Amino acid sequence: MGALRFHSLCLFLSTSTRAASAPTRLSPLHHHSHGHLVFKAKPYTLASRDLSTQVTAEAEAPENIEKHPKSGQEGFITPRSHDFNAWYADIIANAELADYGPVRGTMVIRPYGYAIWEAIQDYLNAKIKETGHKNVYFPQFIPYSFIEKEASHVEGFSPELALVTIGGGKELEEKLVVRPTSETIVNYKFTQWIRSYRDLPLMINQWANVTRWEMRTKPFIRTLEFLWQEGHTAHATLEEAEEEALKMISVYKTFAYEQAAIPVIVGRKSRLETFAGALRTYTIEAMMGDRRALQAGTSHNLGQNFSRAFETQFTDENGQRQYVWQTSWAVSTRFVGGIIMTHGDDGVPLRIEIGPRDVSSGTVVISRRDVPGKQGKVFGVSMESSILEAYVKDKLDEVQSSLLEKAISFRNSNILDVSSYDELKEAISQGKWARGPWSGSDAEELRVKEETGATIRCFPFEQPEGTKTCFMTGNPTEEVAIFAKSY
Amino acid sequence: MGALRFHSLCLFLSTSTRAASAPTRLSPLHHHSHGHLVFKAKPYTLASRDLSTQVTAEAEAPENIEKHPKSGQEGFITPRSHDFNAWYADIIANAELADYGPVRGTMVIRPYGYAIWEAIQDYLNAKIKETGHKNVYFPQFIPYSFIEKEASHVEGFSPELALVTIGGGKELEEKLVVRPTSETIVNYKFTQWIRSYRDLPLMINQWANVTRWEMRTKPFIRTLEFLWQEGHTAHATLEEAEEEALKMISVYKTFAYEQAAIPVIVGRKSRLETFAGALRTYTIEAMMGDRRALQAGTSHNLGQNFSRAFETQFTDENGQRQYVWQTSWAVSTRFVGGIIMTHGDDGVPLRIEIGPRDVSSGTVVISRRDVPGKQGKVFGVSMESSILEAYVKDKLDEVQSSLLEKAISFRNSNILDVSSYDELKEAISQGKWARGPWSGSDAEELRVKEETGATIRCFPFEQPEGTKTCFMTGNPTEEVAIFAKSY
Repeated sequence: MGALRFHSLCLFLSTSTRAASAPTRLSPLHHHSHGHLVFKAKPYTLASRDLSTQVTAEAEAPENIEKHPKSGQEGFITPRSHDFNAWYADIIANAELADYGPVRGTMVIRPYGYAIWEAIQDYLNAKIKETGHKNVYFPQFIPYSFIEKEASHVEGFSPELALVTIGGGKELEEKLVVRPTSETIVNYKFTQWIRSYRDLPLMINQWANVTRWEMRTKPFIRTLEFLWQEGHTAHATLEEAEEEALKMISVYKTFAYEQAAIPVIVGRKSRLETFAGALRTYTIEAMMGDRRALQAGTSHNLGQNFSRAFETQFTDENGQRQYVWQTSWAVSTRFVGGIIMTHGDDGVPLRIEIGPRDVSSGTVVISRRDVPGKQGKVFGVSMESSILEAYVKDKLDEVQSSLLEKAISFRNSNILDVSSYDELKEAISQGKWARGPWSGSDAEELRVKEETGATIRCFPFEQPEGTKTCFMTGNPTEEVAIFAKSY
Repeated sequence: MGALRFHSLCLFLSTSTRAASAPTRLSPLHHHSHGHLVFKAKPYTLASRDLSTQVTAEAEAPENIEKHPKSGQEGFITPRSHDFNAWYADIIANAELADYGPVRGTMVIRPYGYAIWEAIQDYLNAKIKETGHKNVYFPQFIPYSFIEKEASHVEGFSPELALVTIGGGKELEEKLVVRPTSETIVNYKFTQWIRSYRDLPLMINQWANVTRWEMRTKPFIRTLEFLWQEGHTAHATLEEAEEEALKMISVYKTFAYEQAAIPVIVGRKSRLETFAGALRTYTIEAMMGDRRALQAGTSHNLGQNFSRAFETQFTDENGQRQYVWQTSWAVSTRFVGGIIMTHGDDGVPLRIEIGPRDVSSGTVVISRRDVPGKQGKVFGVSMESSILEAYVKDKLDEVQSSLLEKAISFRNSNILDVSSYDELKEAISQGKWARGPWSGSDAEELRVKEETGATIRCFPFEQPEGTKTCFMTGNPTEEVAIFAKSY
């Protein structure tokens, strides 16, 4: 899988205006075995932003920014610096990554967007299998009573459920939940599949669609229906479940760094932000171009919460009945949005320029997005496709390293260490992330959220050593937490 | 993709009773890069047939067959010759291919079953891309009004719909259909994406789950929810749409023959059996081990039925507005059931036998299912895994050829040419397929169905030459039709 690198996820190429004065639309020429794409230009025909006559999706409320005068014009991309949200919507539309569905908050993933998801799938699917998990498929309809069995699970999910009440023309006796996640139905089957310690660990994964009735939606980032992989495992001991949960968050971290060039911060969620039904949630948190945090993948140690609710037991080596220890973990199409909002700018990593003189000499000019001006240009690269392709691949590897470096330095320069609540408020008001010692209560965490809009993104695994003083309570604590506004 | 052959679809291996007197359960040791599986034995722990305490799925009504005395016993597989339906259920359970979901008619696809589906996906996904289609993903929730737009479509699908009426705790203004197929929502987007002839052909495909509220269900063959790929294309002319529909049924046929060793018959559906909303439906029809027909894949020329209903138009080269011509085509998890019911017998294509003497000599005995007795056995094959694996792969290729030959001769010997309705009735009553000249009306076709239980499976592409006399009406006709009982 080493051949899958950022350049296969990186679709924002366009052609030079030196050759074509009309706006152009792009289509991949082919997707070769190394997984990266070569592009050709096509006449541009679709209006940006004029996506749908029936769009009723509420986008994330944009902050108080005046519309760019050219906003909504065909082919125009709002500068990212002018309005991040409008820029994101323009990129999604112009690069034909996604489009709105007819139902509020739903999304059609178009070929270029889906190709990014397929690259993510290819990599993660191989890693999930390498780490011993088997793919399966569970039904998406879950009896409503299942969701009610685990107390915090129903509390967390019930406001977001889509319910099927009519099937085959008849009112159903029990309404059915359209899967928002599968812990309950998985446990229903685990009770039947697991008998003794010899059946453990049981480690499965599925690629599936899930539905959550979200009110504020944004393409890829938060949609009514999305695609994901969800892993579910059962173990004989807490230690094994913990090891599994940590292993999978580490797979996600490696993917983010090495494939998507996103320098995520790995850590543990606060109790308030823990998955509904989990003992502990681990997360990878990514800093978007507007410095908001994006939860890009999570891994849960579910403890025995679901096994006790569903009576998922095994007979141990001493013949005793025990509840299994479980994990679940997921990465979704949200990651596609994360890639765009991390690396996207006003829309071209590597530009291949072809002018009339180039055509006569059979060469092209290659310009790197990340190195402006003449310094980033190479003239006279042969048009011969095998040479050009190898050259582009090589350059994209360079771009990948450079993008990761830039993303790391962007991230680091936007995380401030704070030692008082006032310093935190100041950091957040500047749009930055705040990192500081924390031992506050749930109520104090909520107060920070209400007063600043920031939440605890995680207690990062990388911690400064020694005892610190909580900036909120003044009590001694071993841990720093990271606070930020998030998507 | 040449490496994907039947042996990657072929999971019914077991270990020898020479070594283990207890029943065994199987798990793949690993899935290597050539796509076939190597198995190891595990102690068997799951009861066959005792799959679920909450199973309410109605299986296909078994014909009037007494239960085998051992039926339902742990690890027991009903002989196929005794009761095909019970045998199928036992295979599904014992080989751990699938299990029942908590909601009537739903199915959990377990790792071995899903591995077969993944092998199908790998092959078809590559072919679909090679033939110029791009993968996308459409939302599964479709406004009810969409389904109503195409008259025969709503008539065909409305009895089978699952409807979401509550979302996020609120009654919805318009109820939502959980996708039974996507022609309507695809056309909604095509109206926005297609402007001129330069946007055509537009050729997309999606891998998705679909829901049809079926009353009589059977694992893989007919379930409330299933997985499939659905291709959707739009073209400038009827001829192009026809060419596309024919090309994709041919891709399916090649897959069936070359990968799954299923000798399907390719043909055109009768008007009555045509997809709800299509102009013409092409089908691949497979003969199962009990000689029932299985529709294993379909490709539809939709004509302008959906484009007229949705106003999906383009501007042609002369500046005139025209309705597009469309196709759609699908293969589903039903194909997994088709593989089992074609090639499955009482549960082992290649048996690797290891006795105590073999262990001391480091060798195994390999027995072919399809060649009984000593003739099918090879003694003294090295246990060294690279040698054993290559040997097994080679033998499975032989088994594949032999299975296809056997399936072809089984199929041919069970299709009778008929020249009168009485002959047809006789053939059907013997459980065979009947092929005969047909120019009957819809009413006459329905009469055959009512009186014999058989339907027209297709007008096969391979037709005897010359004018024939319809066995029902006595009128001259150019075509023979194939009649059979089907799943």
